[in-house]
Amino acid sequence: MHLFISNDTTAPYATLLPDDSRHCVRVLRMTVGDELWVTSGDGTLCRARLANPHPDSCEVEIVERLTDYQPRPFHLHIAVAPTKNNARLEWFVEKAVEIGVDRITPVICDHSERTTLKTERLDKLALSAMKQSLKATRPIIDQPMKLLDFLKTLNPQSSILNPQRFVCYCSGHERNTLRQLYTPGTDALVLIGPEGDFSDREIATAIQSGFQPVTLGNSRLRTETAALYATTVLNFMNI
Amino acid sequence: MHLFISNDTTAPYATLLPDDSRHCVRVLRMTVGDELWVTSGDGTLCRARLANPHPDSCEVEIVERLTDYQPRPFHLHIAVAPTKNNARLEWFVEKAVEIGVDRITPVICDHSERTTLKTERLDKLALSAMKQSLKATRPIIDQPMKLLDFLKTLNPQSSILNPQRFVCYCSGHERNTLRQLYTPGTDALVLIGPEGDFSDREIATAIQSGFQPVTLGNSRLRTETAALYATTVLNFMNI
Repeated sequence: MHLFISNDTTAPYATLLPDDSRHCVRVLRMTVGDELWVTSGDGTLCRARLANPHPDSCEVEIVERLTDYQPRPFHLHIAVAPTKNNARLEWFVEKAVEIGVDRITPVICDHSERTTLKTERLDKLALSAMKQSLKATRPIIDQPMKLLDFLKTLNPQSSILNPQRFVCYCSGHERNTLRQLYTPGTDALVLIGPEGDFSDREIATAIQSGFQPVTLGNSRLRTETAALYATTVLNFMNI
Repeated sequence: MHLFISNDTTAPYATLLPDDSRHCVRVLRMTVGDELWVTSGDGTLCRARLANPHPDSCEVEIVERLTDYQPRPFHLHIAVAPTKNNARLEWFVEKAVEIGVDRITPVICDHSERTTLKTERLDKLALSAMKQSLKATRPIIDQPMKLLDFLKTLNPQSSILNPQRFVCYCSGHERNTLRQLYTPGTDALVLIGPEGDFSDREIATAIQSGFQPVTLGNSRLRTETAALYATTVLNFMNI
């Protein structure tokens, strides 16, 4: 059964977003009485029936509400440097949402070649990935911010316990793996650097902010690959 | 230091592939005496010096040979149905090579919409991902074949022990996770189905061929996402 998005599913009737309305009526050719899933991305999955198949503002009647649908066992926040090639970050967002992520913050680093980023498209990709993988919780895509400013926003007290904070980088001394450091069931915040890696001051500041250096293995991974690797492994350790 | 490809690195001198020659001389503007890495993808990484910076057939002198460079702790073979959208399979190949895979077999399934596939481009992507992630072993990309024909090529005797065989599908009864079933250090062969999932006869035949049904978690993953998820998790369990 298809999943559609509405801005509000709290009333007995909900209106699908214009794109979803078009897809429902024009592409899938659904008609009055057809059953479908609808969510606003707030964690509630609603079973609904098509009431008014309008191609721009399709109205559905909500039959059943599944609150807190498939709750995630932990909160995963990935802070990742935007890639030179935008498509690579977009790809990461799609895949991360499919596998499971709660929040993505694009962080501009000292060695970032890209210093600006439009998040509208990332939001759209996250939404369609959420629909594709039948999830009812919409991940947060933050506006980009400088890494050092991002680190300032974090509470130093919570650094060791929850969320566990990890910084992945290539250069430098021996580091532990996520298996050695991460405690399943704990929330996690992971920092992934740009093509040119983090600067020394960024790594030092992250460690001062309670981030533990981790290695993702021997392979030299691209930024978006490292970000998805961490997303996959942390989800895997929680099933 | 950059890694370049040559068809043969056994002699004292090696010639880079035309694309690599161009990149070395025209893009990176390397000159006589500059150091670089070169491999033929046979597992040996060679330290070399640029001897003749010809833009089409760049000649290098091999200074040092690192045989069996970064050997993988297990052999990973992924048999995956080609995606409707070719770019998605291409993306999987690039990422899988970065993270670590030894062999990829495109398998045409009963529910595959795509029944033909050109592997030249996949080979090229695998090669550039190998260079990007500084690996010296070139993964094998097989020509596509029908899944049931592929299963016939497998030795039934080796089914339980090595490689361990896993089939991932959405439909049906309770399955175990890779963590429950996979023994680190063991070679692995993983089957990933098409958008429409495997047919019942394909699942039955796979299980008869010694494949254990596994679940990759609650999320409904796209074909290429499931394939990379399995690749990531099995590599992670081996570090």
